[in-house]
Amino acid sequence: MFRCDPIGFIHTPFTDLQGIPIQPIGARGVEGSLELKPKFSAGLKDVEGFSHLIILYQFHCSKGFSLTVRPFLDSRRHGVFATRAPRRPNPIGMSVVRLIRRERAVLWVLDIDVVDGTPLLDIKPYVPEFDVRKAVRIGWLGGKAKRARRFRSDRRFVS
Amino acid sequence: MFRCDPIGFIHTPFTDLQGIPIQPIGARGVEGSLELKPKFSAGLKDVEGFSHLIILYQFHCSKGFSLTVRPFLDSRRHGVFATRAPRRPNPIGMSVVRLIRRERAVLWVLDIDVVDGTPLLDIKPYVPEFDVRKAVRIGWLGGKAKRARRFRSDRRFVS
Repeated sequence: MFRCDPIGFIHTPFTDLQGIPIQPIGARGVEGSLELKPKFSAGLKDVEGFSHLIILYQFHCSKGFSLTVRPFLDSRRHGVFATRAPRRPNPIGMSVVRLIRRERAVLWVLDIDVVDGTPLLDIKPYVPEFDVRKAVRIGWLGGKAKRARRFRSDRRFVS
Repeated sequence: MFRCDPIGFIHTPFTDLQGIPIQPIGARGVEGSLELKPKFSAGLKDVEGFSHLIILYQFHCSKGFSLTVRPFLDSRRHGVFATRAPRRPNPIGMSVVRLIRRERAVLWVLDIDVVDGTPLLDIKPYVPEFDVRKAVRIGWLGGKAKRARRFRSDRRFVS
């Protein structure tokens, strides 16, 4: 067990939990910033070389968790670990974003799909050799994942 | 700030921190298990439909963090957020693994690259529509990422 302490905060145009794209593919071109606490600035050395970053953040608007959830993309309930829904035992979200530029402790990014003020936990370089898999089956999301582009959030996961 | 509590533990053939593959591409075919605490078993409903899972886990052998690190794949120092090294402010690791089968609260997986006994924090379905990006630049890892297949860990990140 350990304490997760934000390294900074994510700023986006989404100030309301209602109507946010539910994945980066629905947030194409949306600009935001990852504002690190200045003491972590040195940790960004050489990050400019990467076009895409994996960000981990806290689903801070969800309190508690549900083991089964009715996700945005389906009317049926699924185990929370078979979904990307926010009400998880460890409320950690993950998205891949595009890096535009760095200004000291601030990274400007595109395709950001989180609510303004989200606590940022980690940044990792996105590396296709490590992160891309082929011949993938996607269970209940088959035929539905592409629709994530059109879906927007409602308040179902806010406690 | 919130408390990260493991949902279970990861079991692998790697009982020593020395000599572990440093990414799943170096652990191709290595079998392990994700053993959830039984109380979280219901959260796995429908997970069997997914061929690949994203797992988040705690880098529990690293205490504290370094803002710049000399990663396994390079002799130069880089900002920790431009690497996948374990000594991070929030010591959370991420890997994509192949799911073979489920037995109640246990998931048998392939391509696992972590030390035996690693605390498991979260499981998410791997969905190419959400997680795959094209036209990617990978900075200092250019020409080096593929070499991750051959590299094995040493004890540099153990405190």
